[in-house]
Amino acid sequence: MNYKMMGRFISQILFIEAFFMIPALCISMGYGEGHAVRAFAITIAITAAISVALYLLCKGAPSAFQAREGLVCVSVSWIVLSLLGCLPFYISREIPSYVDAFFEIVSGFTTTGASIVPAVEELSHGILYWRSFSHWVGGMGVLVFLLAFTGQKGQGFTMHLLRAESPGPNVGKLVPKMRKTAGILYLLYIGLTVLDIIFLLLGDMPLFEAVCHAFGTAGTGGFGVKNDSLASYSPYLQNVTTVFMILFGVNFSCYYLLLLKQFKSVFKDEELRTYFGIIFVSIVLICLNIRHLYPTLEETIRHAAFQVGSIITTTGYATTDFDLWPAFSKTLILLLMVCGASAGSTGGGIKVARVLLIFKSLTRNIRQVISPRKVELVRNNGHVVDQKILDNTNAYLAAYVIIIFSVFLIISLDGFSIGTNFSAVLCTFNNIGPGFEAVGPTCNFSAYSPLSKLVLSWAMLAGRLEIFPMLVLFSHNTWKRR
Amino acid sequence: MNYKMMGRFISQILFIEAFFMIPALCISMGYGEGHAVRAFAITIAITAAISVALYLLCKGAPSAFQAREGLVCVSVSWIVLSLLGCLPFYISREIPSYVDAFFEIVSGFTTTGASIVPAVEELSHGILYWRSFSHWVGGMGVLVFLLAFTGQKGQGFTMHLLRAESPGPNVGKLVPKMRKTAGILYLLYIGLTVLDIIFLLLGDMPLFEAVCHAFGTAGTGGFGVKNDSLASYSPYLQNVTTVFMILFGVNFSCYYLLLLKQFKSVFKDEELRTYFGIIFVSIVLICLNIRHLYPTLEETIRHAAFQVGSIITTTGYATTDFDLWPAFSKTLILLLMVCGASAGSTGGGIKVARVLLIFKSLTRNIRQVISPRKVELVRNNGHVVDQKILDNTNAYLAAYVIIIFSVFLIISLDGFSIGTNFSAVLCTFNNIGPGFEAVGPTCNFSAYSPLSKLVLSWAMLAGRLEIFPMLVLFSHNTWKRR
Repeated sequence: MNYKMMGRFISQILFIEAFFMIPALCISMGYGEGHAVRAFAITIAITAAISVALYLLCKGAPSAFQAREGLVCVSVSWIVLSLLGCLPFYISREIPSYVDAFFEIVSGFTTTGASIVPAVEELSHGILYWRSFSHWVGGMGVLVFLLAFTGQKGQGFTMHLLRAESPGPNVGKLVPKMRKTAGILYLLYIGLTVLDIIFLLLGDMPLFEAVCHAFGTAGTGGFGVKNDSLASYSPYLQNVTTVFMILFGVNFSCYYLLLLKQFKSVFKDEELRTYFGIIFVSIVLICLNIRHLYPTLEETIRHAAFQVGSIITTTGYATTDFDLWPAFSKTLILLLMVCGASAGSTGGGIKVARVLLIFKSLTRNIRQVISPRKVELVRNNGHVVDQKILDNTNAYLAAYVIIIFSVFLIISLDGFSIGTNFSAVLCTFNNIGPGFEAVGPTCNFSAYSPLSKLVLSWAMLAGRLEIFPMLVLFSHNTWKRR
Repeated sequence: MNYKMMGRFISQILFIEAFFMIPALCISMGYGEGHAVRAFAITIAITAAISVALYLLCKGAPSAFQAREGLVCVSVSWIVLSLLGCLPFYISREIPSYVDAFFEIVSGFTTTGASIVPAVEELSHGILYWRSFSHWVGGMGVLVFLLAFTGQKGQGFTMHLLRAESPGPNVGKLVPKMRKTAGILYLLYIGLTVLDIIFLLLGDMPLFEAVCHAFGTAGTGGFGVKNDSLASYSPYLQNVTTVFMILFGVNFSCYYLLLLKQFKSVFKDEELRTYFGIIFVSIVLICLNIRHLYPTLEETIRHAAFQVGSIITTTGYATTDFDLWPAFSKTLILLLMVCGASAGSTGGGIKVARVLLIFKSLTRNIRQVISPRKVELVRNNGHVVDQKILDNTNAYLAAYVIIIFSVFLIISLDGFSIGTNFSAVLCTFNNIGPGFEAVGPTCNFSAYSPLSKLVLSWAMLAGRLEIFPMLVLFSHNTWKRR
């Protein structure tokens, strides 16, 4: 492990973080929230100081990057980002415990949206903005931002980083240069976010709330500015949010292909079709199951569509307390949590592309068992899928199951029910937010012990970074000198 | 698919089933239970008649066997065995619903031990015997019995059957001839069962109860003759059962190696060490967690050891209501359910050998991610594990997860809580028996709808037959003519 190189890299990341806090500082000033202004000013100063110190310490580091350095840089920089990013919450005393503040910002950066704040309406505007902004930048990735908009060099370097930070099993290069790919992704992301804000403003949502909600929607995060999430907003605003949540769960390469007018390859994309198919079938099934709970069909469909869109994209906004729905709908919601959104989107979960591969690889195995002598292949969008990708997908599933069970066991020490703990694990690890029972849409994670909060924070980071960057931290091979 | 061949095969299986019912008939006669005598007599007549009819119809079938025929023969014969094996329950009116009777006998043959009978003490002796015997013969396998003790020919044929019916990823041949392997396995099985009966009789358990309990222990099933399972028996009898449950969860090849005095290779077996390691650590952790619930340390250890042995071997006997234990112990129990016993034992679950392979393959993948250019291998007992076995293990895990979620969704239609449904799926699919909440040790499965009971029956069969034989039934490739 080359520590100098890592130090230089983290120096750059922290500089960007300090820079990102300036708007929050300005908002706090604008609303005259003195304690928040102080908190942001102190944090910016500390972050910038560490950044400069690291820069000076790690001058002259080599720029040749290996795979393990890429992975470790990603995981360590996300941890450091969170350790400093939670300081405004803590210094302003709006979240008096440091562990709670850390949990909250990890939940923000990883676009989980699980909160330990009992009443968000009591938070100041600057803090609310920073909370929501953490979703936005975490959704597409801080490191991808660094690649896209700074002069970061080295093709191998950028490739490893983009691979490690971007969601999905098959992050393709849109264009031969990774830096340009990162730039295109961010421009699409900014464009869609602005469009969401405009639609929300057209529905008479105040500007501040529209920006915060658009950040939460774009990052598929789920932090809002109201205690009841989106329940008290107009049906129009709820429907706009439904549509945009689902749009942000689409693989961003599809939007790029749309811009290039390659409509046919977008239309034929198997993951996209499956994604919309799952959403449609789930909405229909849930509507049939909950029809008796709401006075009109319109309201039934609106709530079903919103919750399905919110859960499959792992956003976590709510317009109704789905913990009160019948068991079938709740179970379906739980399965959508595990499935997650498309690869290459800001959503979490296992990802539709992987679920597709797991199913295809299973039916291939069944065919193989029936006719052992015939060579059976797995195809995706017409192309044969490499055995290595299938192996990696299966290894991902194995890691996924092992992590869920391990975290589940550790947090059970706090004594909550099996249902609460299991949904808490699923909701943090899949970066969703609210779960069922004691961590349901109307409750929060504050009752867990500090140990559980830290373990769940680790699970959120593992979920956001697709597991392996957070696992290599535990391997002694990672820390061996070259 | 060659239907004639299948017919001839099922004819033999049914003949054995009719033969197996004769002791139950005699016991019913001995206890003067007229309605049960009638039920067994009618069932034996029907079963024998179908057997003879199939034999005459399918004369002159070819004996060359292919893989898919082996798989389908196994799954279809288990279904037919259950369809007829449940008739005594139904005809005697001791279980008035046919679906319930089917669920009960599937639970028996698959060594699950999940029951729909609210009070087993009201059942007649003949029925209780047949229920427990179904565990015993299901544990080692009806088809293995056929291979071991009849003149079944064809090396390929026996190989496919033994592979499909025996538990575990790596059923090795003990001796070059498969028939002889099957014979050795059954002799070891009978020997250990008789030993268990003797130890129970030494503790003053009545002969009938000792035989039934030994059958339930040997098959790692869990059907008993008392409403409170083993709670009202003496500590000695409980401890004997603990020891024998754990012994029946060991790979039977180990016993064969012990007979051959190859102590060293048994002692060094990684699965065996891991199996005992998991049991020991779990008992210690649970003791620490439940110490305050019981008056003495002896009682604490006894209950912890019994429940750990019962759950990891997927037996399902209970000496105490573990649904009342703290969340940590319950979660640990749930993980043991998923883990299961050793490959090549009568226990269910994923199996320790597979869990070991999944962990090893994951750490290999992590090392590979850290150093992409180094070729990393997975070893088991010192030998390099073939990539094909690793792929199969991962495919098994994928199928396992998909089935759990599918069954979970279907049975949620009945409206029970998520905790109840999830543990019901885990307990049937892993062939354990009782779960938590509404299907806990003091409750039963009778409240589920007929649809759920059939789906759970399918899950039990899939769990017992290691998934693939029950999955190929759904593939149209299976039913194509050659």
